[in-house]
Amino acid sequence: MAVTGVADTLLAESLERIAREIDITFDSLLPLPQDSRRRLVEAMRYAAIGGGKRLRPLLLTSTAEMYGVDRDAALRAAVAVESIHVYSLIHDDLPCMDDDALRHGKPTVHCAFDEATAVLAGDALHAFAFELLADVATSGDPFIRAELVQTLGTASGFQGMAGGQMMDMLATEASMDLQTVTRLQQLKTGALLGAAVEMGAILGHVQPEGRTHLRGYARDIGLAFQIVDDLLDHEGDEAAAGKALRKDAEAGKQTFVSLLGPERARSQAEMLVEQAITHLKQHGREADLLRALARYIVERDH
Amino acid sequence: MAVTGVADTLLAESLERIAREIDITFDSLLPLPQDSRRRLVEAMRYAAIGGGKRLRPLLLTSTAEMYGVDRDAALRAAVAVESIHVYSLIHDDLPCMDDDALRHGKPTVHCAFDEATAVLAGDALHAFAFELLADVATSGDPFIRAELVQTLGTASGFQGMAGGQMMDMLATEASMDLQTVTRLQQLKTGALLGAAVEMGAILGHVQPEGRTHLRGYARDIGLAFQIVDDLLDHEGDEAAAGKALRKDAEAGKQTFVSLLGPERARSQAEMLVEQAITHLKQHGREADLLRALARYIVERDH
Repeated sequence: MAVTGVADTLLAESLERIAREIDITFDSLLPLPQDSRRRLVEAMRYAAIGGGKRLRPLLLTSTAEMYGVDRDAALRAAVAVESIHVYSLIHDDLPCMDDDALRHGKPTVHCAFDEATAVLAGDALHAFAFELLADVATSGDPFIRAELVQTLGTASGFQGMAGGQMMDMLATEASMDLQTVTRLQQLKTGALLGAAVEMGAILGHVQPEGRTHLRGYARDIGLAFQIVDDLLDHEGDEAAAGKALRKDAEAGKQTFVSLLGPERARSQAEMLVEQAITHLKQHGREADLLRALARYIVERDH
Repeated sequence: MAVTGVADTLLAESLERIAREIDITFDSLLPLPQDSRRRLVEAMRYAAIGGGKRLRPLLLTSTAEMYGVDRDAALRAAVAVESIHVYSLIHDDLPCMDDDALRHGKPTVHCAFDEATAVLAGDALHAFAFELLADVATSGDPFIRAELVQTLGTASGFQGMAGGQMMDMLATEASMDLQTVTRLQQLKTGALLGAAVEMGAILGHVQPEGRTHLRGYARDIGLAFQIVDDLLDHEGDEAAAGKALRKDAEAGKQTFVSLLGPERARSQAEMLVEQAITHLKQHGREADLLRALARYIVERDH
């Protein structure tokens, strides 16, 4: 994306900062053991450190910052959300799932290590996320710790990400209309993006009724994110993406692009981003980063 | 095992009761959705309902009962621990891991469904465990909810079960002595058995310093359990076990039996069980079930 205005500079700096901070936090929280578990932690670190846009961590820390949350606490929660995201990528890339050899421009975990280690590294990152959230270092308030766990657990399991992934696996076989694809994507990617925003607010002691507008924001950018993912998959550049593209079309899957056509899909994504920004109208300048993030989602080229 | 004395009757009734209760609780907490996530929840239910000895749930509820914990709360926590155990079995059975076709006398999840669904059902049960623990229905006290999550998370991840599994995967290649095998098994199976006991005490508001003897008990029965597993694998009956046996010997792995010989292994297990029971000396009749459970562990035939 072109970095032009003040908002874009803020965003570019924030993306760079969060990428650095997430790497540092993973590095310090996952030291290599001196016994034969070493290979497991190496695989966890290989997948978790140095890759990805860190969109979920940035959503979490940006929301937390709006409510004056301590940066270290927000980063721990951000690492937990990213651990769930990373584990899901490791498992999605497995030969029995999407069978992908490339992720973030480097070999996937089962290619760099082996399949069994990939399954296990995913599982270990999964447990790590909840262990981290439940730790007193994340928040001194046990209400908050428990609520963070529940929010992330619900967003990851059969009611969220894993449920959406199952729907996606069956999507080649069933005939999918726009409503079903929307529901699928809300679960598969939207739930975790929503959890990231919500967890930032939970750390800021915002009660559930005060999070309605944030849920609206997250729902809209989540859907916009997926539409743009479909557009990039349709039109994008494999080198910039760092992974194989156009697998959905090859698999005969319905996407927002196949259902709406690229032009209507793009205008739908833009409309959703405007709607997401409208949800933030009660906030002043402190929500500028969330606004910039929403625009970045439709403007990104990978 | 022969059911003779009062303790044996208590144990037999408790094993039967917990098996029924865990099935009922899984059934009520995992209703089948009406959309295409149905297949995922079917696979979760297939793996979770109607199989296994429910040893971890019984350890948890027996400890909880000692401290007067509400039965429903203990059952929810017990289902969480069992969800972790079941997810680990699903993933361990995968072709890229142990490649087992039979579990509890029925086809493993990847055989009954498919590999991708098995990976996902394991992941969904994993998230479900933490979601359940963090729910206010498990305990009205957020301190307890957070501590349950942290205890189970640590016991499941790279510091516990997943770490032990990694060590086990490398065990064919490395030369393993008794100390290393002990450490491996303490992580692979001991950590989760220990978490079950500890979570029962956490629900009973027992502070960490008051749980030392329970950790000792759990450590001893955990090791005894694994030694007996190795003995059953060496001598046992595949039909009674409901799974393939003697895979360790075929893979050239070191076990307690290969390192100690069957006779010393059995006497070591019996010694550990007596030691486990000694850890409970401060308790009266209310610990009889935990004592009976310790003896059951060496006397069981599958």
